[in-house]
Amino acid sequence: MPSGKLHCIPLGGLGEFGMNCMAVRWGDDILVIDCGLMFPESELLGVDIVVPDITYLLENRDKVRAILLTHGHEDHIGGLPWVLNELNVPVYGTEFTLALVENKLEEHGLLDDAELIEISPNARFKIGPFTVHPIRVTHSLVDCVALAIHTPLGVIIHTGDFKVDPTPTDNVLFDLHAFAEYGKQGVLALFQDSTNVERSGYTPSERAVRPKFEEVFARTRRRLFITCFSSSIHRVKLAFELAFQHGRKVALVGRSMTEAAEIGMDLGYIDAPDGLLIAPGQMRDFAPEKICVMISGTQGEPMSALSRAAVDNHKHARIEKGDTVVLSSRIIPGNEKAIYRVVDHLFRREANVIYDDGSWPPVHVSGHASQEELRLVINLVKPRYFIPVHGEYRQLRRHAELAKSMHGAVGQTLMIESGDILEFDELGARKAGKVPVGRICIDSGAMGDVVEDLVIKDRRHIGEDGIVLPIVAINKLTGRAESTEIVTRGFASQSVENELIGQAREIVARTIESSSAEELADYGVVKEKIRADLKRFISKSTQRRPLILPVILEI
Amino acid sequence: MPSGKLHCIPLGGLGEFGMNCMAVRWGDDILVIDCGLMFPESELLGVDIVVPDITYLLENRDKVRAILLTHGHEDHIGGLPWVLNELNVPVYGTEFTLALVENKLEEHGLLDDAELIEISPNARFKIGPFTVHPIRVTHSLVDCVALAIHTPLGVIIHTGDFKVDPTPTDNVLFDLHAFAEYGKQGVLALFQDSTNVERSGYTPSERAVRPKFEEVFARTRRRLFITCFSSSIHRVKLAFELAFQHGRKVALVGRSMTEAAEIGMDLGYIDAPDGLLIAPGQMRDFAPEKICVMISGTQGEPMSALSRAAVDNHKHARIEKGDTVVLSSRIIPGNEKAIYRVVDHLFRREANVIYDDGSWPPVHVSGHASQEELRLVINLVKPRYFIPVHGEYRQLRRHAELAKSMHGAVGQTLMIESGDILEFDELGARKAGKVPVGRICIDSGAMGDVVEDLVIKDRRHIGEDGIVLPIVAINKLTGRAESTEIVTRGFASQSVENELIGQAREIVARTIESSSAEELADYGVVKEKIRADLKRFISKSTQRRPLILPVILEI
Repeated sequence: MPSGKLHCIPLGGLGEFGMNCMAVRWGDDILVIDCGLMFPESELLGVDIVVPDITYLLENRDKVRAILLTHGHEDHIGGLPWVLNELNVPVYGTEFTLALVENKLEEHGLLDDAELIEISPNARFKIGPFTVHPIRVTHSLVDCVALAIHTPLGVIIHTGDFKVDPTPTDNVLFDLHAFAEYGKQGVLALFQDSTNVERSGYTPSERAVRPKFEEVFARTRRRLFITCFSSSIHRVKLAFELAFQHGRKVALVGRSMTEAAEIGMDLGYIDAPDGLLIAPGQMRDFAPEKICVMISGTQGEPMSALSRAAVDNHKHARIEKGDTVVLSSRIIPGNEKAIYRVVDHLFRREANVIYDDGSWPPVHVSGHASQEELRLVINLVKPRYFIPVHGEYRQLRRHAELAKSMHGAVGQTLMIESGDILEFDELGARKAGKVPVGRICIDSGAMGDVVEDLVIKDRRHIGEDGIVLPIVAINKLTGRAESTEIVTRGFASQSVENELIGQAREIVARTIESSSAEELADYGVVKEKIRADLKRFISKSTQRRPLILPVILEI
Repeated sequence: MPSGKLHCIPLGGLGEFGMNCMAVRWGDDILVIDCGLMFPESELLGVDIVVPDITYLLENRDKVRAILLTHGHEDHIGGLPWVLNELNVPVYGTEFTLALVENKLEEHGLLDDAELIEISPNARFKIGPFTVHPIRVTHSLVDCVALAIHTPLGVIIHTGDFKVDPTPTDNVLFDLHAFAEYGKQGVLALFQDSTNVERSGYTPSERAVRPKFEEVFARTRRRLFITCFSSSIHRVKLAFELAFQHGRKVALVGRSMTEAAEIGMDLGYIDAPDGLLIAPGQMRDFAPEKICVMISGTQGEPMSALSRAAVDNHKHARIEKGDTVVLSSRIIPGNEKAIYRVVDHLFRREANVIYDDGSWPPVHVSGHASQEELRLVINLVKPRYFIPVHGEYRQLRRHAELAKSMHGAVGQTLMIESGDILEFDELGARKAGKVPVGRICIDSGAMGDVVEDLVIKDRRHIGEDGIVLPIVAINKLTGRAESTEIVTRGFASQSVENELIGQAREIVARTIESSSAEELADYGVVKEKIRADLKRFISKSTQRRPLILPVILEI
């Protein structure tokens, strides 16, 4: 065995939800697995997205050979614009994953300089001392892979996100045989997805949603709106099929849904017979029972198409009495209130709303492996070392306990968190220090459908650009804004600020006047609208981007 | 049938979660059913609790005869201090409910002036034109009743919160017979709890948690911490019993847990054999395997005993490696992040954490009726009119749909929301206008264990007392506060403010210095500590109570 040290260093996603990113280093060569974002917690007001701190990679920038992507979800690819901007290295991913990445990089003007390299399951490739073997896994979107990385010390396997779907809708099976083969040959370390470790049994197949979708299409008499994670290509495909069968036209509403569906069609994952698709503006030309709208906004994001349609503030998507709205998605923890607010608005419009309420057949199934699938993969791989990844601390801990109890299948279980250096050598494995990690908060320009240049912006700059707090008092009885105060700190000279504050107050007043009663009752929406409008105004008039934190007081 | 109009007017709890309150009026006589609070949404920063606007009652103060309580949960009694302060009328409740109310009123110095009247199941009483018949129901706490109110137009039944527990732990059965008898005689209107309408089947009996508790007591080798809603007397009783059997002493930690358990013992619901209970300070005198701690803080409230113990900041409750912590409670929507943060802290301390993760046998069961129980009560009562209560809009709507489908059992289903006047007369029922309703935000003095006078304070006064925003930049890498800004608006004269700001900055610096690394990593805790400390300081030095909104920036 060669002497030397293999370092596996999670830079995000271990002990926190999202922004998955892990560095794998042998000597002077570093590979990075995934590069995700995290959606901000409510405590981080005024932040759009959060990405991992990559100080470690920047300090070793001459050693970083590539970023390898397991699949195209935001918590695995969403940090790429930020990272490539700082460190432009080749990005490896499957066809579908790279198509999502291309869109994202193009938006931020980074595509021309990016080097994107397509990989395929079972097509091995070499990078420095590593040989990488992508292995097909099943998940809630298409074209996902686990990565078996051959290192001088042995093979490590990173599962990416997966479930073991025995009946995937595209009939592309989870490659049990590849995992089994590695298990026979011997595996140094298995890094496995912890997301659903709290669930016993097996996660249902993606096919399990079909009966519910069929029932909904059969029973719906008016317009049908469906929202799902835009990258849930399996489900978009199912909706297209059923819409065609039931004689409904399909309109795509919302940027993320439109882009993902278009990629799915371009790459042949989704079949759209001629005449099936219509533009959102054409909806009015068809009877309500001839319309199926695929719409963005599963998480109740205040500016998403569905949230706006729910409060009657979307140009094309009008939801009326008797329409049906299907939320085919899970609630990401922390988003409960926002989502139920949208559901309540929809019920108030007298729509039929179908959401994941635990009833069977399900309108949504998870894309992550439950306990029995986790055990299955461990038994196939029989790793010397087992390391749980992708999870909050309690999930990592429970996953470690699950693995520890599997005598005969796991040599040793190790718990590490973001920033820990996990070191392997001929003597074994151990934690060997820490690298700096953390959350970088990004303030991404405009919200909503208008695509602005994303100004990647570190919170460290706040001292320079200052802070603006619009404080709006809304009278609960009348729904009117009774007063608006604009509090600022250090974002321009006093005289400029004084002038701006008057104008800013007018902007806020206008934003509120232009809002419907339903929007005003929904403070999440009001705050987001104020933030977007003020940001646009201040950025135009001062070229600065202060932190904007709207505060709503109910009086 | 007498001519006249019966008005039923929900003042809270219909179309929103919490603050249940309904007025029932015939001519010049008004009864109020329940008087709850709501815990504030995260959008309402700087607010401790929320109570219903009772303008309608105040405008008719000479007509309000009584407040009738169905049971002792905060969302049914928590608004009493605020309401009695404005409108001191007799309060009717069962023995246990009134014991909780007494504690609450005493805290706020309102007990001496309050008129509390004890009621019992099946003991009817007259108030003006109404005869009230309390009917025993089962729920997650003891001594709960539904109310059958005989009015000149017929009987209306309000279920309060309930489930139909076939095997209650105290063997006091749900009074199916009383509901059945009313069903035979004819019921004008049934107002029924909608909380669990989204759940199919039956809610498990409270007895269902016993096997899990037995397993935990049998397997735990070190200290055992149990948290549950403090009013869950059934579960506190179970823990006492098992602690006694397993030779563990019981310590009560946290104010709400201590108070509720003491009431339970005083009233004979809980049996504590001599020597079972020890003071928190005595814990150190016993071996870890001889200790069971009943502790407050199921919802991850930042200043609760459990949250503080989880970050090693509680005087008596120290949680160490190998200790077991049981969270026998549900997650109230909106609290997911706070609760999982506590669970993560506990896992980091290498405690065994048992929480409601969907596994069986359950460590928690709901206290609210699922669909089949809702149908059962409807079939027993066979009301002319059915009105869903206690629920967000989607729950009311689904409950209405459930009732509508019960042909032969329900005459007509009506959907109303807080503020709607539901009018009955000899011709039928209809919505007849609105009364003002809304949320009154209350800023309740100090947090934590120190009981201060609760200054009931309406948000309308903000204009008078101003606003203070401590803005703290915390360096994620070092965990240190790098700068603190105090932004104020209109809470004192400029010169006073300038002086105060300097001192306030010191207060915040001290709060942060005195916080452990674990606390600093938990912004919810940091914000709450800053808020409590600043509030105390400002209130002492200025006698004013500005709104304090801490903002944490991560840099």
